Amino acid sequence: MIIDCHGHFTTVPKTLHEWRRRQLEHTGAVYGAPLAISDDELRESLESGQLKAQRERGLDLTLFSPIAGQMGHHLGTLEQGIEWARVCNDLIHRVVQLYPQNFAGVCQLPQSPGKDVSACVTELERCVKELGFVGCNLNPDPSGGYWTDTPLTDRHYYPLYEKMVELDVPAMIHVSSSCNPCFHHVGAHYLNGDTTAFMQFLLAPQLFKDFPTLRFIIPHGGGAVPYHWGRYRGLAQDLGFKVLEESLMNNVFFDTCVYHQSGVNLLTEVVPHKNILFGSEMIGAVKGIDPRTGHHYDDTKRYVSATPHLCDEHRHDVFCNNALHVYPGLKYRCQD
Amino acid sequence: MIIDCHGHFTTVPKTLHEWRRRQLEHTGAVYGAPLAISDDELRESLESGQLKAQRERGLDLTLFSPIAGQMGHHLGTLEQGIEWARVCNDLIHRVVQLYPQNFAGVCQLPQSPGKDVSACVTELERCVKELGFVGCNLNPDPSGGYWTDTPLTDRHYYPLYEKMVELDVPAMIHVSSSCNPCFHHVGAHYLNGDTTAFMQFLLAPQLFKDFPTLRFIIPHGGGAVPYHWGRYRGLAQDLGFKVLEESLMNNVFFDTCVYHQSGVNLLTEVVPHKNILFGSEMIGAVKGIDPRTGHHYDDTKRYVSATPHLCDEHRHDVFCNNALHVYPGLKYRCQD
Repeated sequence: MIIDCHGHFTTVPKTLHEWRRRQLEHTGAVYGAPLAISDDELRESLESGQLKAQRERGLDLTLFSPIAGQMGHHLGTLEQGIEWARVCNDLIHRVVQLYPQNFAGVCQLPQSPGKDVSACVTELERCVKELGFVGCNLNPDPSGGYWTDTPLTDRHYYPLYEKMVELDVPAMIHVSSSCNPCFHHVGAHYLNGDTTAFMQFLLAPQLFKDFPTLRFIIPHGGGAVPYHWGRYRGLAQDLGFKVLEESLMNNVFFDTCVYHQSGVNLLTEVVPHKNILFGSEMIGAVKGIDPRTGHHYDDTKRYVSATPHLCDEHRHDVFCNNALHVYPGLKYRCQD
Repeated sequence: MIIDCHGHFTTVPKTLHEWRRRQLEHTGAVYGAPLAISDDELRESLESGQLKAQRERGLDLTLFSPIAGQMGHHLGTLEQGIEWARVCNDLIHRVVQLYPQNFAGVCQLPQSPGKDVSACVTELERCVKELGFVGCNLNPDPSGGYWTDTPLTDRHYYPLYEKMVELDVPAMIHVSSSCNPCFHHVGAHYLNGDTTAFMQFLLAPQLFKDFPTLRFIIPHGGGAVPYHWGRYRGLAQDLGFKVLEESLMNNVFFDTCVYHQSGVNLLTEVVPHKNILFGSEMIGAVKGIDPRTGHHYDDTKRYVSATPHLCDEHRHDVFCNNALHVYPGLKYRCQD
């Protein structure tokens, strides 16, 4: 059993994008129109996309969420964001119903710059209790590249964390698109969001004292963090905090969305294997085939399989068991 | 001959900070007060700090610039920034005069959010022609964490690039402190700045067509970039650009400020050795001793010496020759 903890519905039929465009033209009002996408259209978009790659690469289950870059928390009003999150999450739910063996749901949250998280709490509860979702995506920068909201460790987020703990679901930290011309979305903003979130967690040990079972996945291999593991170990030491492996590693996990062998080697060398979850973000940021290997850059299973820093037991943890631990909602379907 | 391309005067006597504090209290006006720091005070601050470490670690020459975190381009007016840059750069010049064998000058530029770069051009020319400086630090985010200015590839910066080319000096891309509570300065903002700048360069090949000899050093081992080298190679490919090694590597260089062996191994494995310059940023972000090695985290010479991915000839390039190539102003003093 190989679980990919990081997939977005990037191949969604264009009807969804058109729906969103029209909704935002409603200048602040809820749109209310139905989303006309048939089951056949959903099947088609997946059979030629994520399911095809799943089969070719030998993956079993993908934790599937709405397109990160289209969450667009900085667009429209909070009310529109609530409607948009419901529409996107309901579509993921339909995918999971069509392919229950292949996908498990992870929800988008209706965050909005400067707004409290009460709508996020409501949507998370709906998705977990009514739709059977196993996690959520949490945007550390709802402003879309201007970083005008509070750090993730601020009490602003505590109502959401209380609900996550109550429901026993984790959050993947994931920015959306960037409306700041300084930041290319997948080439800068995504990785910056990961790096920034990790440092916020490092600086605020109180968060995980307040919520000992709260769990975050930092995607894209943890941004810059594993590459700078010595810097973070040294900063924690200089600041008088516990060593990273004791302070954060019950609560913070990294995926393996690093698109070359050397990067996954480093990740698996420096980060405890219990804190690494297999992920590929397929089909996502990089779609091409690496001419040096003849395989897709984002076929991260190959790198995890080849790294010399995991024994077979630990490799199996990365591919499967760690996801079952971090996403307890998966257990009912993943008896290996 | 070992050249450390990345050092700041972090041990500067407190008198300088006090001067800056009083200047900013002048609410926009130029301060005009002299800076009362004696040569003995300068010697003392260096002999017990950077010079001590230089000798202990076997380094020969440090490219020395004002404290990056204190550039504070977001503070005060442009006029105050001009005065502040002159004061800081003149102090570096005094250090170089006191220890011409140990230090070469790199200047701070009087950037200011939303302002054109004419003052930077003037100060760069003064520092290079009158003070013998060999490079400058260029802040990709003068706002201090809100990223409200243009990307580095915008024509906004072209007058500065014209002057850099004319004087044949490179710029190290280096943010200053963060006034955004989301970003810890050395744990997030610094690395984000590096990652962001690289992606800006990748996206705008026209810049290096316009300025074929323009050279940038991206510090802190290139932020997240080498760890995600596959992502960047894949993005360049998907976007229809040349491969990175052909498009950027005549103009973009990385230092070795990565504070553990695994990180430097990765850097030297994936980035062409000609694009790596030895650097430590000593005394800087991380001051402690790694209990796993018994040596300072930032004693990066040990990692560069130990990486299996450099032959002796290439290691010498990283330690010395590449810096002589990127900073031609060094040549008169570094006959190896």
